[in-house]
Amino acid sequence: MVKQVRAARTRQALVRAAAEVFAADGYAMASLPSISRRAGVSAGALHFHFASKDFLAREVEDAAADLVQKMAGEARSSSGTVLESLVGTTCRLLVAMAADPVVRAGFRLGSDPSRKNGPGVLAWWRTWVHERVAEAREAGELADDVSPEGAAAAIAAATVGFEVLGGADRDWLCEERAAQFWAFVLPRLAAFPQQAMATVTGAGGVR
Amino acid sequence: MVKQVRAARTRQALVRAAAEVFAADGYAMASLPSISRRAGVSAGALHFHFASKDFLAREVEDAAADLVQKMAGEARSSSGTVLESLVGTTCRLLVAMAADPVVRAGFRLGSDPSRKNGPGVLAWWRTWVHERVAEAREAGELADDVSPEGAAAAIAAATVGFEVLGGADRDWLCEERAAQFWAFVLPRLAAFPQQAMATVTGAGGVR
Repeated sequence: MVKQVRAARTRQALVRAAAEVFAADGYAMASLPSISRRAGVSAGALHFHFASKDFLAREVEDAAADLVQKMAGEARSSSGTVLESLVGTTCRLLVAMAADPVVRAGFRLGSDPSRKNGPGVLAWWRTWVHERVAEAREAGELADDVSPEGAAAAIAAATVGFEVLGGADRDWLCEERAAQFWAFVLPRLAAFPQQAMATVTGAGGVR
Repeated sequence: MVKQVRAARTRQALVRAAAEVFAADGYAMASLPSISRRAGVSAGALHFHFASKDFLAREVEDAAADLVQKMAGEARSSSGTVLESLVGTTCRLLVAMAADPVVRAGFRLGSDPSRKNGPGVLAWWRTWVHERVAEAREAGELADDVSPEGAAAAIAAATVGFEVLGGADRDWLCEERAAQFWAFVLPRLAAFPQQAMATVTGAGGVR
């Protein structure tokens, strides 16, 4: 049992270290020795858990998608409407892109040309945003004259763009930026903008 | 004179080949031999024009910024208002991101973690969008209750995000997408949305 706990910790340390190296140097330049060194484990231990850099990257991508899904679940449970949960999730995501190397690396790997194994987290996120906006339309939460496709594309693209611009300037990834973005988008998008805005402007920022 | 023309053509072929390789494989994986082969020139000719991969990348970034500046100038001369020129430029840019490897690579290099020499084209584009939105405010073209900072951030982030999402799916980079984006954004942004929209909905799409 103790051995299993230790193995799980080692695996977690490797995923975090890999995420840090992938986000900082890109997939091509990330070396397995630099990842095992950063995780404080031997090269042998790395190879015991991950047969290749590709497996390590997949694990980072899966972990990032899981984390975003968890944020979405939390935003959902504290929200009254679909739009509130969409706003809450993107706000949490922008903050996590700055604070959590796994989330940042998950999105980065999706746009890294040296990582050839599909768009991963990006495709998942794009689909997730589209589904939420469609759901909001079904629930009568969107303004009548707004196109769900256009809105979903703008929201998905902007969140991905915030991460890219945040690579050079962390100021792009914070609650204030997220609130500013939604203050711009919601009056056009929502049937009842003020209700959805409550998610970002509640006491303490993002709830 | 003939020699100068030939040298200029070689240089241009190298910049285009480098852009294609940077956009496809990322900065780290792009090799000088693969660039000279693609350009159809010798390794010696490449080294005569560019002392290193860094110089080649800078030239691609400069060329991309020049191209976007040219698009902005064209959009400006065919536009009546600042917002129309902003709409026209982003529409041209999205199309060019799909069609022109130099423009695509310029933006890609800005978010490539293996390229360490600053954000280049991204920083330039971000500033350019901010300046246009501020100018539109000055000219009384923005809706009274809109924040120029929030609007500029959303527009800059979304255009960058469209390029990233277009890496896996070119459908994100076309006139229709651009029109859809502005159809979503302008009713909130502009004091006179229909006038600015004319730029994207004119006969033949983007003018």
